Amino acid sequence: MNIAIYPGTFDPITNGHLDIIERAVKMFDKVIVTIARNSSKNPLFSDKERIKMIREAVKEWSQVEVDSFEGLLVDYARKRKASVILRGLRAISDFEYEFQLALTNRKLNDEVETVFLMPSEKYTYLNSTIVREIARLGGDVSDFVPPVVKTAFVLKFRK
Amino acid sequence: MNIAIYPGTFDPITNGHLDIIERAVKMFDKVIVTIARNSSKNPLFSDKERIKMIREAVKEWSQVEVDSFEGLLVDYARKRKASVILRGLRAISDFEYEFQLALTNRKLNDEVETVFLMPSEKYTYLNSTIVREIARLGGDVSDFVPPVVKTAFVLKFRK
Amino acid sequence: MNIAIYPGTFDPITNGHLDIIERAVKMFDKVIVTIARNSSKNPLFSDKERIKMIREAVKEWSQVEVDSFEGLLVDYARKRKASVILRGLRAISDFEYEFQLALTNRKLNDEVETVFLMPSEKYTYLNSTIVREIARLGGDVSDFVPPVVKTAFVLKFRK
Amino acid sequence: MNIAIYPGTFDPITNGHLDIIERAVKMFDKVIVTIARNSSKNPLFSDKERIKMIREAVKEWSQVEVDSFEGLLVDYARKRKASVILRGLRAISDFEYEFQLALTNRKLNDEVETVFLMPSEKYTYLNSTIVREIARLGGDVSDFVPPVVKTAFVLKFRK
Amino acid sequence: MNIAIYPGTFDPITNGHLDIIERAVKMFDKVIVTIARNSSKNPLFSDKERIKMIREAVKEWSQVEVDSFEGLLVDYARKRKASVILRGLRAISDFEYEFQLALTNRKLNDEVETVFLMPSEKYTYLNSTIVREIARLGGDVSDFVPPVVKTAFVLKFRK
Amino acid sequence: MNIAIYPGTFDPITNGHLDIIERAVKMFDKVIVTIARNSSKNPLFSDKERIKMIREAVKEWSQVEVDSFEGLLVDYARKRKASVILRGLRAISDFEYEFQLALTNRKLNDEVETVFLMPSEKYTYLNSTIVREIARLGGDVSDFVPPVVKTAFVLKFRK
Repeated sequence: MNIAIYPGTFDPITNGHLDIIERAVKMFDKVIVTIARNSSKNPLFSDKERIKMIREAVKEWSQVEVDSFEGLLVDYARKRKASVILRGLRAISDFEYEFQLALTNRKLNDEVETVFLMPSEKYTYLNSTIVREIARLGGDVSDFVPPVVKTAFVLKFRK
Repeated sequence: MNIAIYPGTFDPITNGHLDIIERAVKMFDKVIVTIARNSSKNPLFSDKERIKMIREAVKEWSQVEVDSFEGLLVDYARKRKASVILRGLRAISDFEYEFQLALTNRKLNDEVETVFLMPSEKYTYLNSTIVREIARLGGDVSDFVPPVVKTAFVLKFRK
Repeated sequence: MNIAIYPGTFDPITNGHLDIIERAVKMFDKVIVTIARNSSKNPLFSDKERIKMIREAVKEWSQVEVDSFEGLLVDYARKRKASVILRGLRAISDFEYEFQLALTNRKLNDEVETVFLMPSEKYTYLNSTIVREIARLGGDVSDFVPPVVKTAFVLKFRK
Repeated sequence: MNIAIYPGTFDPITNGHLDIIERAVKMFDKVIVTIARNSSKNPLFSDKERIKMIREAVKEWSQVEVDSFEGLLVDYARKRKASVILRGLRAISDFEYEFQLALTNRKLNDEVETVFLMPSEKYTYLNSTIVREIARLGGDVSDFVPPVVKTAFVLKFRK
Repeated sequence: MNIAIYPGTFDPITNGHLDIIERAVKMFDKVIVTIARNSSKNPLFSDKERIKMIREAVKEWSQVEVDSFEGLLVDYARKRKASVILRGLRAISDFEYEFQLALTNRKLNDEVETVFLMPSEKYTYLNSTIVREIARLGGDVSDFVPPVVKTAFVLKFRK
Repeated sequence: MNIAIYPGTFDPITNGHLDIIERAVKMFDKVIVTIARNSSKNPLFSDKERIKMIREAVKEWSQVEVDSFEGLLVDYARKRKASVILRGLRAISDFEYEFQLALTNRKLNDEVETVFLMPSEKYTYLNSTIVREIARLGGDVSDFVPPVVKTAFVLKFRK
C-alpha cells in the first residue's frame, strides 16, 4: 500500500492545505495528515483543537487519517510505513526551506521520498499566519479556511 | 481626490521610506503615512515616538499626513477614502511578503489597489532592523535616517 | 492630467495585460498602451496586427489609447507628457528584469516614475510565450486571451 | 495502474535525470520518459539519438518506457493514461518556469497532476546545456552523464 | 599580511562552516573565526562553549585563530588589521541578507571588503538551526558537525 | 604570488566590471581580465575590440593584465598559475548561474577557488546587454561605461 504523510503545523488548517490533500487522495492509497506535538512555541490553537478541526475538514475523504507525532519525522514515517512525505510548494520562500527539510530527511532516512505538489494558484499566497492575523482583526476569513475553522476563530476572538 | 495610504511599522522611519514618500507626493493628491497601533510586539520606539519622528521628517511636504490605525488596513483605507495602498519594493525578500499582503487586501476589499514604487538603489538593502542594530552598537547612522531619528537613537542608547 | 504609458511587446496581448489595464484606468486620467516598433526579432504578429488586436481588446475603456514608438522609452514618455511608466509584476523572474529597466529609465530621465501593479493571481504565471506555444500546438487558449486574439491564432496556425 | 510521464528535452540525458527516474520507479507502476519531437530548435543530438541514449541509460529498470510525442503534453498524457507528470526541481530558476508549465497544463487538463521530486544535492546545479559546453571544450563529463552519453559526445566532437 | 575575519554565530559550528574555513586558509595568511559576544538572544551553547568547540574543530590549521568581539564588526576588523570579511554563500535566502550586511559594512568602513565563498554542494542546505533541531529530537548529526559538537549535543540533550 | 583571473564576455566592459576589478587589485598580486575567444555568438564588438577597450579602461592599474583564452576556463587557470576565479555577484539572477559555473569548475579542477565580490549598489542592475541597447537607441551611456567604450559606441552606431 502506498502511504503518504502530510506533516505540518496546521495552526489552523486552511483551504490551501485542503487543496493539497484533495490532490493527494487521488494519488495515494492513504494520506496521513499529522501535526508535530509541542513543536510550535505559542500556537493559537492547541494540538487537540487543531487535530479536531482537521478531522472535521477532511471527513469526506475516507482514505485520510489525522494523527500527531513527537520526535523525528522520518522515524514517524518508518513507524507508519509511509514511503512518501507530502509537501505543498507555493512560493519561492517555501522553496529553500522545503529543500533543506527534504534533504535533511533524506540524509536521516533515504527510504522516504519527499514529493511536492502545487496548490491551486488561488492559494499561492495563503498561509496560516496571515489568516490568524485577519481573524484577530475581525476580518472575514470565509475564502481562506473551512467552516469549522471560521467558527473556531469566532469563539477564540470574541470577547 | 487621489488619496494614497503608506502603511508600515516605521520603527524608525529611514531614508528609504522618505525616498518612497517623495516619489509618491508627485503622484497623489494626498499621501497618508500611517502606523498600525500595537502591531509590533517589542518596538524600540513607542507609537507616539514614531509618529512624532515621521511628522518631523515629512514636514516639508504639505500633502503628507501622518496617522495611525487599528484593525484591518482595508477598513482604514475605506474610512480615509483612499483608493491606493502604497508600498516600496526593494528586494526579492520583500516581494513575496508584499504580494501576499496585497492579494489578501484585495480579497478583503477589491476597491483599494496596491501600488508598488521602487526606492533609489542607494536604499535597496536598507531597513529599520539593521539601522536599529547599528545604532545600538554605536555606529554612525547619518546615511540611513533623517536627523530627527539620529537624535532619537542617541537619546535611546546613551547610558 | 495624469498620464501613464504601459509599454510592452504584446505578442499577443493576454488577459493578464488586460487585468493590469483595467486596474490602471481607475488610477490615471489616460493610459497609453504602446508597443516598441521593430523591437522583437521574430514576432508572431506584426506591429500592425498587434496594435489592431490591442485596440479591439481595450475598446470598452475610453481613457485608453493604443500607440507605438521607436527609440528610448523615456524620450517617448516625455513626448507624450506621461509621468508614469506602468508595469505588471507577476513573479520573481519579472522582478529583477523590471528593476533593471526601471532603474535605467530613472537614470536616463528622473521625471518619469515606474509604477508596479499586481495582476490577479489567476494570471500570475501567464505570459505571451506560453500562450503562443499552446496555440501553435492546437490547445484551447480561451482562458488566456481575449476573443480577438483567439481568432487571430486560428487564422495564423490553420493550414 | 499508476502511470507517470517524465517529459523533457534530454539533449542529452544526465545523471540528474537518472536520479529522478530512479526515485520515480519506486513510486509509480510505470514511468514513461518521453521527449517532445521537433521541439528544440537546434538540438545537439537528434530525436532518434536522444531516445536511443535514454533507452540504454534506463535499461536496468523494467518499469521504464522511453517514448516521444508531438502536440500538447496533456493530450499525450491522456492517450497514455498517465495521471502524473513528473518533474525534477533543482533550483529557484527552475521553480517559476515549472510552476507556469504545471498551472498551464492543469488549466488544459485538470485530471493530470504535476508531481515534483528533488534530485540528490550532487545534481542541484547540473543541466544539459553546461554538460554540452564542457564536452564541446574537451572537458571530462564522466561525473555528469551515463557512459553511453560520454561515448556519444566523443563521437560528436572528435574531428 | 593578508588577514580575513570569518564572523558568525556558530551555535554550533557545522561541517559547512569548516568547509569554508578550509577554502579560506589556502587563500589568506591568517583567518580569524570570531563570534559576536552576547548577540544571540537564546543561544543553545554559551559564548565560551562555542569558542571551545571551534578551537577544537580548527586545530589542524595553524593559520586559524578563534576569537570573539563586541560592537560593530567593521571596528573589530580595523582593530585586527583585517582587510577581508569572509562569508559563505549557500542559497538564495542567504543572498539578500548577506548583501545587506556587506553593503552596510562597506558604508561604515570602505576599507574592508566582503568576500563570498561557496561551500561544497553537500552543505548547501545545512545550517545550525536545523542541526540543533535534529540533535534535540535525538537524530544522528554525524554527517553535519565535527565530533566535538556531536559530543556536546549528547551532553546537552541527555537527561 | 596570488593570481586571480576575472573571466567574462565584456561586450563591452562596464563601470560595474571596473568596480569589481578595483576591489580585486587590493586583494590579489595580479588580476588577469580575460575573455573567452569565439564564445559569444553575435558579439557587438569583436574579440580584438573588446580586449583593446579593456586595456584602455584598466591602464591605471599596473597589476592588471588583459588576456583571452580558448577551451576550458580551469585549464586556462592552471596554465596561468591562478588559484582564484573572480566573479561579481549583483543580483539573484546571477546567483544560480554563477553557482552552477563555480561548482562545475570545482568538479573539473578543485585547486581553483571561485571568489565572489559585490560591486557597489550603484551597479547592481547594470549589465552589458542593457548598455548596448541604450547605446543603439541613441541614449547617453556616460554613467554606465568608461569613456573609451562610449566613443566606441558612437563609432559603431552612427550611420
